[in-house]
Order: sequence, then structure tokens, then C-alpha cells
Amino acid sequence: MGSTSDLPVMEAAAKFLNEMKIPFEMNALSAHRTPEKVEEFTRNAHKRGIRVIIAAAGMAAHLPGVIAAMTTIPVIGVPIKASLEGLDAMLAILQMPPGIPVATVAINGAQNAAILAVEILATSDPELHLKMLAFKEELKTKVVKANEELSKVRYEYKVG
Amino acid sequence: MGSTSDLPVMEAAAKFLNEMKIPFEMNALSAHRTPEKVEEFTRNAHKRGIRVIIAAAGMAAHLPGVIAAMTTIPVIGVPIKASLEGLDAMLAILQMPPGIPVATVAINGAQNAAILAVEILATSDPELHLKMLAFKEELKTKVVKANEELSKVRYEYKVG
Amino acid sequence: MGSTSDLPVMEAAAKFLNEMKIPFEMNALSAHRTPEKVEEFTRNAHKRGIRVIIAAAGMAAHLPGVIAAMTTIPVIGVPIKASLEGLDAMLAILQMPPGIPVATVAINGAQNAAILAVEILATSDPELHLKMLAFKEELKTKVVKANEELSKVRYEYKVG
Amino acid sequence: MGSTSDLPVMEAAAKFLNEMKIPFEMNALSAHRTPEKVEEFTRNAHKRGIRVIIAAAGMAAHLPGVIAAMTTIPVIGVPIKASLEGLDAMLAILQMPPGIPVATVAINGAQNAAILAVEILATSDPELHLKMLAFKEELKTKVVKANEELSKVRYEYKVG
Amino acid sequence: MGSTSDLPVMEAAAKFLNEMKIPFEMNALSAHRTPEKVEEFTRNAHKRGIRVIIAAAGMAAHLPGVIAAMTTIPVIGVPIKASLEGLDAMLAILQMPPGIPVATVAINGAQNAAILAVEILATSDPELHLKMLAFKEELKTKVVKANEELSKVRYEYKVG
Amino acid sequence: MGSTSDLPVMEAAAKFLNEMKIPFEMNALSAHRTPEKVEEFTRNAHKRGIRVIIAAAGMAAHLPGVIAAMTTIPVIGVPIKASLEGLDAMLAILQMPPGIPVATVAINGAQNAAILAVEILATSDPELHLKMLAFKEELKTKVVKANEELSKVRYEYKVG
Amino acid sequence: MGSTSDLPVMEAAAKFLNEMKIPFEMNALSAHRTPEKVEEFTRNAHKRGIRVIIAAAGMAAHLPGVIAAMTTIPVIGVPIKASLEGLDAMLAILQMPPGIPVATVAINGAQNAAILAVEILATSDPELHLKMLAFKEELKTKVVKANEELSKVRYEYKVG
Amino acid sequence: MGSTSDLPVMEAAAKFLNEMKIPFEMNALSAHRTPEKVEEFTRNAHKRGIRVIIAAAGMAAHLPGVIAAMTTIPVIGVPIKASLEGLDAMLAILQMPPGIPVATVAINGAQNAAILAVEILATSDPELHLKMLAFKEELKTKVVKANEELSKVRYEYKVG
Repeated sequence: MGSTSDLPVMEAAAKFLNEMKIPFEMNALSAHRTPEKVEEFTRNAHKRGIRVIIAAAGMAAHLPGVIAAMTTIPVIGVPIKASLEGLDAMLAILQMPPGIPVATVAINGAQNAAILAVEILATSDPELHLKMLAFKEELKTKVVKANEELSKVRYEYKVG
Repeated sequence: MGSTSDLPVMEAAAKFLNEMKIPFEMNALSAHRTPEKVEEFTRNAHKRGIRVIIAAAGMAAHLPGVIAAMTTIPVIGVPIKASLEGLDAMLAILQMPPGIPVATVAINGAQNAAILAVEILATSDPELHLKMLAFKEELKTKVVKANEELSKVRYEYKVG
Repeated sequence: MGSTSDLPVMEAAAKFLNEMKIPFEMNALSAHRTPEKVEEFTRNAHKRGIRVIIAAAGMAAHLPGVIAAMTTIPVIGVPIKASLEGLDAMLAILQMPPGIPVATVAINGAQNAAILAVEILATSDPELHLKMLAFKEELKTKVVKANEELSKVRYEYKVG
Repeated sequence: MGSTSDLPVMEAAAKFLNEMKIPFEMNALSAHRTPEKVEEFTRNAHKRGIRVIIAAAGMAAHLPGVIAAMTTIPVIGVPIKASLEGLDAMLAILQMPPGIPVATVAINGAQNAAILAVEILATSDPELHLKMLAFKEELKTKVVKANEELSKVRYEYKVG
Repeated sequence: MGSTSDLPVMEAAAKFLNEMKIPFEMNALSAHRTPEKVEEFTRNAHKRGIRVIIAAAGMAAHLPGVIAAMTTIPVIGVPIKASLEGLDAMLAILQMPPGIPVATVAINGAQNAAILAVEILATSDPELHLKMLAFKEELKTKVVKANEELSKVRYEYKVG
Repeated sequence: MGSTSDLPVMEAAAKFLNEMKIPFEMNALSAHRTPEKVEEFTRNAHKRGIRVIIAAAGMAAHLPGVIAAMTTIPVIGVPIKASLEGLDAMLAILQMPPGIPVATVAINGAQNAAILAVEILATSDPELHLKMLAFKEELKTKVVKANEELSKVRYEYKVG
Repeated sequence: MGSTSDLPVMEAAAKFLNEMKIPFEMNALSAHRTPEKVEEFTRNAHKRGIRVIIAAAGMAAHLPGVIAAMTTIPVIGVPIKASLEGLDAMLAILQMPPGIPVATVAINGAQNAAILAVEILATSDPELHLKMLAFKEELKTKVVKANEELSKVRYEYKVG
Repeated sequence: MGSTSDLPVMEAAAKFLNEMKIPFEMNALSAHRTPEKVEEFTRNAHKRGIRVIIAAAGMAAHLPGVIAAMTTIPVIGVPIKASLEGLDAMLAILQMPPGIPVATVAINGAQNAAILAVEILATSDPELHLKMLAFKEELKTKVVKANEELSKVRYEYKVG
């Protein structure tokens, strides 16, 4: 992440990876304040065994693109809502020029970034694939339960 | 893709996959006009050996999200510019709710979608990883050459 | 609705239908988390006697369009304000491609969705039509009363 | 429609209604230039047997809302793209205040407006309902055919 | 104004007119809920001696345009911020088609609407013109005083 | 106007004023390039008998606001579409701070600016008021005639 | 700044200049309410030894552009967030026409405006250049420390 | 510039610097395709005597911010219009986080970037300052001449 102020948002990603038992590390690396650290981290990522990178940043959010420029590891970008409802970060991450993609998720979409990261790892890990199928079932169960709660809401003419 | 009218944009993806010698298929499947076909395709994708899906759509672009809802295979979304400068498709693909990510790339970013797909495959394929490093070098070469052309532009006070 | 978190907004629709004595049911069905439930609900809607569907969703709001894709029953879409001031949900519901319309109402416009539903039912129900005329008169009365309150606001040079 | 300059867009609606053999009339009525004509038309619509109204307008598009204010017949609004990519018309039609809904369709979505109108009429007309089901099948056929065309596009590594 | 909920914003207009000793009246007239009252008010405005009309409305703000359609009295429009930061009301008031202008002021710009109204009246009232010049001087005085306060803010290297 | 490049748009204003036989002058005065000329023009406007000012500008359109800052004559602002669909000019003219209103019309709304100017002059000129009523009737006639043309458009099921 | 209400934002600029021991002055000068004061200040700025001007304003933010029109001293513009998330001020400052640039920084970016001002002064002041290099090092240290804090966040599968 | 495709826009900058007889160099350096070249250029810029940097880029325009991250030389950013009317590039350049400013000019504002660069150099170069004053006079002359052309436009009621 570009700053520890992004931590409250990004915790959702850490939590999901932890639940899925995926080893991960967390770093605060600013594309603008510590460009050398970003470069050092990115240049060494592949040989250190890192297979997916999630990069979160707000405002003129350059971190995901700057990392993607220096690696061929898939980079997932999370636009952080810090100004203009997050629209600036969204465009600064999404609208990458031809050659250097960033896999962008929703504004403040930290959990989705982690899910996408696990989906990527699961493309070559059948066990993880099964875990993801189970996670998907769980999502359904929650909505089904929510639907049951709705059946308890009472109106005279409500029939379902 | 949601419609064959997206083909002129999506050709860039096919071309890149072909260059990288990645076997791929192309389908026109509309989330709104052929929902059963979309479901059939998506439900069978994993067992048919499909490892990454690129879904392109314009306007209220539901195709990528609808596919992502029915699989845990990574889904890459390409917003097609058909109205409102592509802003509607971008938001309809990117702003997915928690649980169901779509890896969104730039508006009309077909080539980047293909590059991202190959990066994902390369996470478990060292040979493909090397190919991607070579591709990245090529990108540099083009810019370096472009820079050389700039040196030929003449102005009296231009020194570089 | 796509999630029970939409209930505080959608209550206004339930309340209006109840006042108009229109039998209705409420469901939480997520286009992304429970696509099969959405399909099951929509495929059976016509034979179960459902004549209008109101679908509410936020962010990349696919629910109304996904339902509209599988039925010819009129579908009314309510964009829920969850991010970007509701702009993302609005575009994801409104900008449907040719062939599959969604009758979109204002952001968080739950009551208007219900009024529109009753207007549709009233096209073939003269009694309901009379009820709607009465409702419209009531709306006027409220504004006329509000105007009377304004006449009590005092300024030295205010004459009306 | 608010102006005959909207005719090239609105022809798609006329064509669809004609194909479905739905009797219809076309009027140019400006909320701003001929408010009396708009009022006369709307006040008499119900007794003249009009059951659905499609209103199209661009810029500060008041026509749909102004008509909806004077009737309980369902009003379908079509934002015409005349400036600001149609965003102004879209908001001026969609964002109606509580009490007076307009069933808004996509920018320049004339055909969808007509389809929605027929869907509304079909709620009380089983024969029309069957016609709409047939229309929906046709939409599918077109996409299926388009998909077949895609199978003819050749790339060395393309397999589908 | 379209609704008494606009009163907290519009009070600034009333207050300014009162200070300038301009006789005025206040009405709640909804373009959508009481179209007949709007018409009655507007058709009679000129003969009742009304020389400028200020119309405020939010969301799909039709009131100013609907009034302007039925009179040649100058109509000043105030977009009320009720949704989308006021952007919807702003476009629905400002983007009037050729032939029917509305003199639009800033979002929630009630005081400016009143100032503009007095400027219009002052075009044929030399005494009022002098009053407006005095008001303008007062505005300056406030900024000059604010500047003096700034001189009291202390920093070691601040020199002015 | 801020630049003679605005002339093709602003001609519509000149034409309308000419038709109404209102004496007027045209100036190219840039708030940014000739601030002294703008000041000279504005400071002398009232004593030279100018009663309404129409100011047009594009991009960061300061001209209307800068003129309004130096006079109490009503200033009508015309946002010229030069970039960002005219959105920048619109906001730079409309969103004036409390104390200094600009009567803003639609993007490129030159004719409407002239109509508004005449409406303002007509507040104290009964003859001009009659002319404006006649102009308004003419607008109606055009729409009525357009409606007649629509009656000539033929479809088998078209009845009106 | 255009108003003392901008002071809470602009304090960050004053603080930075003070830390860097750059003599500065603060003024509240409104382009709209005190145009003469703005002119007086700007016309005398160069001869008074002012080398860089920071101008902050909100809404239709004309102050930076109006100052830039009357001087060749570099003018740095700070859009103040007062309405529309600061978008109006941003466009009104940034989108200057050819000939009169304003060096615009982020919405509410007061500290960045001051940093930019010092960078400009440092182009001809080697000592100041060294101070800026030290400041940049400090920025890094903060991020590095933040990164260390992240290492203390505990998850079972977190490894870095 | 980020790509030679930006050259047609950026020529205006080169031309102005040449006219002002300011030695300059032009480079195509992509933040995403040649990050090492960008770093090499930026790290050596100060010792090579570069005193101002103009960086132009489109889409997710990272080049100006990435350069600013590695130097304390003032960096002027030019958003290039390549998609979304240039809005994405504008936000990606302007909305820099605290600590690392980019002096942003208008979309495609290449000439203004060059003028700003010369203004910066002129802060310590009295001769250049005089040149800039002369340039400013020239701008005025053009508008004054344009105004004279306007006086030749004929309308019966035009008096100025």
C-alpha cells in the first residue's frame, strides 16, 4: 500500500488471505516518496517467490502502475477513496497504456483484490480451487439467509 | 465478447495471444440476449480446461460480472467505448460488490487484457514468464527508438 | 433487492404497495452471489402470476438487467447509492443495450418504483387507475398546504 | 418527442411498435415552446385510450417529467444525446422527485422504450406476451449467428 | 420554490430582498405535483406586476424551465443540492433549449439569485442602482477586514 | 466575447438582438490577455448607457465573473464549448461565490443569452414586452408546424 | 487566498514556508469582491520583490487566473474544495487558455503549493536546493517508519 | 513526453522555448515502458544543469509524478487528451499526494507549460523577465486587433 493510512481499507485483503491460508507480506511503499524502495521490492519480487502483487493507492494513484512497469507478475490495483469519491485513484490505476496492464478492482475493493489474487493462484493449484468453490457457496448461504430474514418483514399485502 | 461489434477492439487481444502461442477461443455471448449460453459456457469452462476468461462489453456492461458470478476462474473485464466515452461500461464492470471481483483493464484495453491473461498463466509456467520478460524488453526498445527519432527533430535552441 | 442492506431504502416501495393494497413479495437475490436463485425466481415469475418486477441494486448494479434478460415482464430498476453518489449503479442499470430495457427510476427512488409499478398495473385495472388519481390529488394537497405555511413566514417586504 | 430533430433517433421506436402491430401516434410537443399543447395532449390521453406514453427530449429534458406530472399513465422517458454526451438529458429525465416517476431508458434508447411499452401492454394481453417471447428468441438467434461468424475468424492458436 | 424543504436555502434570497426593501412573495409550487398552480401563478404574474421570478428546485429540477416556458418575465433558476452534489439540478435548469432561457446561478446560490433580481430591477431604477453600488462597497469592506485579520496570524518568516 | 474564435457561436446572439432592433456592440475582450481593456470597458459601461452585458468564454472562463465583479449591471454568461464538452466553462461561469452573480445560460447558448437580455430590458419597456410575446408565439408556430410534418410520416399501425 | 475561510486549508502552505525559512506574506484578496486590491497587489508584486505567488480559491475560482493575467511571476493555483468535491475550482484554475498558465496543484493541496514554490526559488538558490533534498529524505524516512509499523501487524499467514 | 504520439501536441512547447531562445532537449521516456530510462534521466538532470522539467502523458499519466518523485527540480505536467476527454490524464497528474507537487497545466496545454517554464527561469533572470513582459504585450496586441476585426462585422442595430 502507498501509505499506512490505507491500512483500515486493506485489512480486508489481509484477512481474506489469512483465512485462505495464503502466505503474504504487507508493505508501505510510496511510488512518490520511496521510489527506490518500490523498485527494490519489485525487482526482487519474482526471485523471492512472490506470485501476485496487490497495490493500493489513493489520489493520483501511481503505485500499481509503477510496480507493473517493472515486473511481469500480475499486479492487482485497489483505488483508495481519498478525494473526488475515489474517481481520481480509479482512473489513475485503470487507464494504463497498452503494454502494462493493472488488474483494477472497485474503489476500496480490498477484499475483492485478495479474492482475485487467490483465483489467480488457484489457476495452478487444484486444492485452492476447491477452497474458492467453498467460499463461493458460503457467499450464497449468506444471501439465502438474508432472504429468510426478509420473509419476516411484515406488511398486510406482502405475500412473500 | 458481448457482441461481434466489439470485434474490431478485441482483435488486439486475439493477436497478442496468438503471438504468445496461447491457445484461445472467441465467443459472442450476450449477458442480456443469451443468458443461457453465458451460463452454459461459464459452468463448463473449468472442466474444459479454460484457465482465464476475458470478457468485453459496452454500455451497462454486465457480461464480465455475470460470468464472474458463476465461476472462480479469474475474469478480466474490458469496458468497450460505446456511449458516454466508455464511462458507463467502466463503472458497470469495475464496481463489483464484495465477493465477486472482475480484473478490469482500461477502456478498449483489449491488448492489456490479453497481456494480463498471459501474466496470470505465467505465474505457473516459467517458460511463459521468460516470454513475457522478452515482450517487456521489446516495449522498451520501441520507446528507445522513438526517442532516437525525437533527436532528429530540429530547433535552433534544442540541444538534446 | 440485491442485498438486505438495501432494505432501508426499499421500505418506501413496500409501504406504497401496501397502501395501494397490491399483493407483493420481497426477496434478497444477488445477481453475483446467487445467480441460480435469480434465474429460478425470474423463470417462474410469469407463471406464478407476477406482473411487474422491481429490482434494486448498488455499485455495478447488474440485478435489474440480469432479470430483464430472462423475462418479458416489465422490470423497474432502482439504483441504490452505495458509492460514487450512486452514479455507478445508475449507469449500470440505465444504459441497457438494445433489446432488453430496464425502466430506471431515480437514485434511491424506491417509492417512485412502486408508483410506476402500480401505474403499469392500472393500465388494465380501472379501479386502480382511480386510486392513482386520488393519490395524485393527495400530492397536490401536500404542496398546497406547504404553500400555506410559507405564507406564515414573515418579512417586512414580503407581500405573498 | 420534444422536437422533430429527435425523429432520426425515435424512428426505432416507431418501427418496433409497427412490427408488433401496436397502434400508435407520433407528436412533436415541446414542454418549453408549446406547454399548452403538451397539457392538452396529456389531459386527454387517458380518455382517448392511450395506455402508455413515450416521451423523448434532449438537454434540460423536461417533457417526460412534465407529462408525468399531469397523468397516471406510465410515462417512458428517452434521453436524447444533444449535448454533454446526453448526460444532461439523462439526469433531467431520471432524477424525478418522489411521487412522479418516469420510466427512463438508455440515452437514445428509442427501441428499448418501445419494447418496454409493449411489455407494459403485455401485462394484460396474453397474445402480446407470446409475441414478446418470440421477439426475445429472435434476439438470441442473432447473437448465436454472430457467434458462428466468430468461429470463422482464423488465428493459428485459436481453438474455438 | 418547488418544495418547502428548499426554504433553508432560499431564506438567503428573502433576506436580501428584504434588506433591499424590494416587495416580494414566496410560494411553494411544484412543477410535478401542482402543475396547474404553477401555470396559474405564471400566467397571472405579469398582470399582477411581478417583474422577475426566482425559481428553485432540486433533482430533475423542472420548475424554472416550466415557468420560463409560459412567460417572458426573466426567470432566475437556483439549483438545489439534493442529490449528486446538485449536478442533476444544475444541468436540468441550465441546459435549456434555444428560445427559453433560464438565468441560472450557482448550486444553492439563493442570495446570488436575489442580487441578480435586484440588478435586473435596477436597470430601470436609478435609486436601486445606487443601493447596489453601496452593497458592492460593503462586500469589499468585509474582504478588507478579513485581510486585516490575516495580518494578525503570526509566523516567524511571515512578513505581510 | 473572450476571443474572436467565439464569434461563430455568438453570432446567434447578435442576430436576435438585431431582429429585436436592440442597439448593441460587440467586443473581443480577454480577461486574461487584456485585463485593462476589460476593466476600462466595464467601469464605463453604466455611464455609456449599457444596461445588460453578455459575456462569452471557454475553458477556465473568467470573463463573465471578472466583469460582474466590477459592475452592478446584470451580466449574462455563455459557456463556450472548447474542451471537456464545455463543462469547464460552465462551472467556471456558473459557480460564482456569494455576492457576485452571473446569469448563466446553456453551453453555447448564445441565442438564449440574447433572449434573456431582451427579457431584462422588457421589464421596463412595455413595447419590448409585446415583441417578446410575439416571439414566443412564433416559437409555438414552429413546433406546431413540425408536428404537422410528423403526421406525414407513414407506418401501417401509426394512427396519429 | 480568496477568502479567510480558506485559511484552515492554506495554513499548511504557511507552515512549510516558515519551516524552510522563506519570507512570505498572506493576503485575503477576492477576484470578485476586491478586484482593485488584486490588481494593486499584482501590479506591484515584482517591484516589491515577490518571486512566486500562491493563489487559492474555491467554486468558480478566478483568483489565480486573474493574477496570472497581470504578471509574469509564476502563479501557483490551489483549488479549494467548497462545492462539487472541488471539481469546479479545479477546472476554473487549471483550464487556462493559451498564453496565461497557472501551475495548478491538487484540490486543497496547500502544502504542495508551498513545496512547488520553494522548488522554483531553489532553481537559483543552491542552499535552498540542499534543503529540499533533505526534506525529500525526510519524506522517505516517514514511509520507511510506517513500513516498520506494518511489520508489527500480526496475521497467522503474514510473513513480511 | 511519454510517447512520440504526444509530439503534435508538445511541439507548441518546443516552439515557444525556441522563440525565447531557451536551450532545451526533448525525450520520449515512458514511466511504464522504460522506467530505468526515466530514472536515469531524472537522477542526472540536476547535475546536467536542467532547471525545469516539462512532462507530458496521457491516460493513467504517471510520468510527471514519477519524475517529481525523484527530483526537487520543478516538474510541469501536461495532461494529454487520449481518452475520456483527457480527464483521466488530468487527475493522474494533478492529484499528487502531499510532498510531491506537479505544476499541472490545462489539457493539451503544451504552450502554457513552456511559458510557465520560462516564468520560472525568469525569477532569477532579469533579461528573461523583460522578454516575458514583451510576450505578454504581444498577447494583448492580438486581442486588440481581433477586437478591431469585430468592429467590421455589420448588423443594422450594432453600434460598436
